[in-house]
Amino acid sequence: MDTTPPAPPTDTGAPAPPHGYTSDKKAYLARMKRIEGQVRGIGRMIEEDQYCIDILTQVSAATAALHAVSIRLLEEHMQHCVVTAAQESPEAAEQKIAEAAAAIARLIKS
Amino acid sequence: MDTTPPAPPTDTGAPAPPHGYTSDKKAYLARMKRIEGQVRGIGRMIEEDQYCIDILTQVSAATAALHAVSIRLLEEHMQHCVVTAAQESPEAAEQKIAEAAAAIARLIKS
Amino acid sequence: MDTTPPAPPTDTGAPAPPHGYTSDKKAYLARMKRIEGQVRGIGRMIEEDQYCIDILTQVSAATAALHAVSIRLLEEHMQHCVVTAAQESPEAAEQKIAEAAAAIARLIKS
Amino acid sequence: MDTTPPAPPTDTGAPAPPHGYTSDKKAYLARMKRIEGQVRGIGRMIEEDQYCIDILTQVSAATAALHAVSIRLLEEHMQHCVVTAAQESPEAAEQKIAEAAAAIARLIKS
Repeated sequence: MDTTPPAPPTDTGAPAPPHGYTSDKKAYLARMKRIEGQVRGIGRMIEEDQYCIDILTQVSAATAALHAVSIRLLEEHMQHCVVTAAQESPEAAEQKIAEAAAAIARLIKS
Repeated sequence: MDTTPPAPPTDTGAPAPPHGYTSDKKAYLARMKRIEGQVRGIGRMIEEDQYCIDILTQVSAATAALHAVSIRLLEEHMQHCVVTAAQESPEAAEQKIAEAAAAIARLIKS
Repeated sequence: MDTTPPAPPTDTGAPAPPHGYTSDKKAYLARMKRIEGQVRGIGRMIEEDQYCIDILTQVSAATAALHAVSIRLLEEHMQHCVVTAAQESPEAAEQKIAEAAAAIARLIKS
Repeated sequence: MDTTPPAPPTDTGAPAPPHGYTSDKKAYLARMKRIEGQVRGIGRMIEEDQYCIDILTQVSAATAALHAVSIRLLEEHMQHCVVTAAQESPEAAEQKIAEAAAAIARLIKS
């Protein structure tokens, strides 16, 4: 049980957001809320015995929305973390890129 | 807060559930609840500025869970609607199968 | 305009082609030849040190072409084998559909 | 028959291969040859009227092999071109990363 509160993401005076996606945070949260609503809607369609193919169409839409968010997160991650790492050292960049490539492989197989 | 119980899917006398997935409805609803929780969790990770790659891992997990549900829905749809249609007429089956194939194509591209 | 009748897939007296896709065999073989050419072209691009992103675009095109063929094969398989099985017995249909669903799951994860 | 020799990728004195994947070129070409063989094999299975589900299994294997090659190409592209661009200027890196993200999106949808 962790009783210490998490460090606030933006201290006063903190110069830059900790991750690439942070500047767009509100937009991301709105997108995730919308996807959450899509998933809840699929549950409701099942609850109401709606037609299977229509449910599958909504599942495809939710999956596509999740993929779109993840591509955007990945791009911002690379713009931010990978580029920062590349300015630090080749080894740091290499490690970040290997990690990103593994994440891409997981997305493609999911 | 909804205090009225949901209408039971099968009234006394109702001969059969309307769709293939209806018999398993509770299990589907539980799975959808879990996926909804996963999606909400991803929003919370963004809210808390968690590490991008960890967020992507959760997105892959949610996508894989949605795909697993859709494969199961599709299988039950075919077991139920396609087989029923095949017993009716070749044309009815052909139409149902074309519809299912289009849904599969959407899933693969999503 | 092709006036020569298509060569019968099997001997005279053979009542029906063995699989759903057999009637379209020539078209499938032409599509597979084209995909084989795409894959060979990707090898040539690597051989000639072409730009990585251009190579990836061709890989996406080849993958999409393979997916399109597999959706078509799957649809014809269901039109043919699944419908035939459904006319035979519910158990035969169930087994064919479970097998098709497993194939769809493999396609989605590939 | 092509009698003109392909331009040698690395002249004597050439300091570095032009792309990230060039160092591994032989391995890539061997992988592409193998995938080309898989695709040709799928054509042969259709030619021989083999069972549809077995053909789909081979299509999944070929698609997975193409995806594996593309993840590797992408990783090396980022290790090479993106890192080089990041050392040049933030704008150059940004452009390369946007291009890579678009390629990833195409792969996911293919």
